[in-house]
Amino acid sequence: MSKIRIGIVGYGNLGKGVELAIARNPDMELVVVFTRRDPNQIKLVTKSAIVRSLNSATALETAIDVAILCGGSATDLPRQGPAFATLFNTVDSFDTHAKITKYFISMDKVARENNHISIISVGWDPGMFSLNRLYAESILPDGNNYTFWGRGVSQGHSDAIRRITGVKNAIQYTVPIESALAAVRSGANPKLTTRQKHLRECYVVPEEGADRKKIEMAIKNMPDYFADYDTVVHFISEDELKLNHNKMNHGGFVLHCGSTSPLNQHLIEYSLKLDSNPEFTGGVLVCYARAAYRLAQSGEKGARTVFDIPPALLSIKSGEELRSKLL
Amino acid sequence: MSKIRIGIVGYGNLGKGVELAIARNPDMELVVVFTRRDPNQIKLVTKSAIVRSLNSATALETAIDVAILCGGSATDLPRQGPAFATLFNTVDSFDTHAKITKYFISMDKVARENNHISIISVGWDPGMFSLNRLYAESILPDGNNYTFWGRGVSQGHSDAIRRITGVKNAIQYTVPIESALAAVRSGANPKLTTRQKHLRECYVVPEEGADRKKIEMAIKNMPDYFADYDTVVHFISEDELKLNHNKMNHGGFVLHCGSTSPLNQHLIEYSLKLDSNPEFTGGVLVCYARAAYRLAQSGEKGARTVFDIPPALLSIKSGEELRSKLL
Repeated sequence: MSKIRIGIVGYGNLGKGVELAIARNPDMELVVVFTRRDPNQIKLVTKSAIVRSLNSATALETAIDVAILCGGSATDLPRQGPAFATLFNTVDSFDTHAKITKYFISMDKVARENNHISIISVGWDPGMFSLNRLYAESILPDGNNYTFWGRGVSQGHSDAIRRITGVKNAIQYTVPIESALAAVRSGANPKLTTRQKHLRECYVVPEEGADRKKIEMAIKNMPDYFADYDTVVHFISEDELKLNHNKMNHGGFVLHCGSTSPLNQHLIEYSLKLDSNPEFTGGVLVCYARAAYRLAQSGEKGARTVFDIPPALLSIKSGEELRSKLL
Repeated sequence: MSKIRIGIVGYGNLGKGVELAIARNPDMELVVVFTRRDPNQIKLVTKSAIVRSLNSATALETAIDVAILCGGSATDLPRQGPAFATLFNTVDSFDTHAKITKYFISMDKVARENNHISIISVGWDPGMFSLNRLYAESILPDGNNYTFWGRGVSQGHSDAIRRITGVKNAIQYTVPIESALAAVRSGANPKLTTRQKHLRECYVVPEEGADRKKIEMAIKNMPDYFADYDTVVHFISEDELKLNHNKMNHGGFVLHCGSTSPLNQHLIEYSLKLDSNPEFTGGVLVCYARAAYRLAQSGEKGARTVFDIPPALLSIKSGEELRSKLL
């Protein structure tokens, strides 16, 4: 049986996570990595795959079945998504929540016009967490959904700290507050403020002679990023940062508490504890690439989200195997 | 907009749970309850619905959109499933794991011949737990799935105790063993025996003058049901049983621990804590009835399981709402 031929677009942390995931799925093969860097400078783990420049994708239109887009949501995907959906079936992890509706519409148009399937916003949030919110509120419509993130690194918040004068390097952890989690699990259906749900913990390497008090205040008062949270700032050395804060672990919780009658309440809890955010996300992207391939094979086209994908399409197992072994 | 018209087949605990769930979904209405008892003896919560004898279903063929089958898997569903699938779209909670494949085939044949959709084995296990096993192993193919049940009542085990000479009444709780759960969560990927995963806790009302030691031994040595487990037997009075053991609470855990590279492991955990097993299961059945209705409306036919259903079909929200609010 021929394998599903995958192209990876962008070879950063996420692209590398996707490459590892492909190697663990025997029905798939990595054919090509597209990069904006000099292809000669890229060394892949997968010896059989080739590296090509981003703008040479057209030449490979018939060589791959699904392109997995591993660029960022801010600037890469809004351009790359539609461009690649003209050539290939695509899967991406677009995660700018406020712009998902608009992105879906633009991807749907291009994918339909070119007879492709494009599954957008795949990963764990948006992705597996979204699915759990949907399943839970469909089962228990009289209930409340709660999402907690962490403990894990927020790239956006880390970047925001690094832009402060006097900061040489920094990393920020989003930390779910245990007492808030406990209140949800108790069935109290609490109203929780932003501050009550998450703590922000920052490890900052100051430049020599920098005013630490001033840096700490600049972080704690930063609107949108920190002002609405309790924030803890630790100053550490560059060595300590490199030694103790080099993992890309993350995770979180989706909880739903709902009632079915005055006396009966139910708690649904889904949680992830991830050693490597990009490697786990790579695993999610790759099984949705399998679904994209199968949908395209059956003649479907247009944009999809995780909400639209029958779960069986994600699995390497046949329908009969799934019914006998996993149901 | 017209509502989705539901029929309930069987008005035991599960049927009543389904009735409560329908009342919490504004796009649905309960039209009829079919019962094998005397319809005049049944009092529904839903004033607008009617009660009819099981064998008068044919007369209501055009009056309902989906029949939710609430009979048992041992004797009711193997007969009622195919019979009702000739007349209606159906949803059921068939849960005899070993016979699911055969049941699927028989339901698929009847549903196809009669242009109906039949979603089988809907609930939490099989059902939501099955989905979590599937999603998890699709994302992390190099990993292990673990399912734990409880703390909750097992009807089958309670019945088995009641059949022992000298036992007046009994209830049995399946209890997941905390140390086993902890070992899985630690990432150790343990091999767990049946005895290491669950404890069986029995509350037994003996008949007057019965030999308690003999009852305890009969329970603990019962093959299939108890012999492979550590079993605790408490003797209590009928009054205490009625007072402290009258809830139908249940729940459990699906855990999956898998690696994506030599250093990186990930834990996915899904858990349910249910005050009422039949009311929660009713909630699951009702949202899958919505999916059955929508699939039938779009011209599909045949048997399905939870693995085949796009999650969006379960929700009262539109695709656009889902993308903007839950993704």
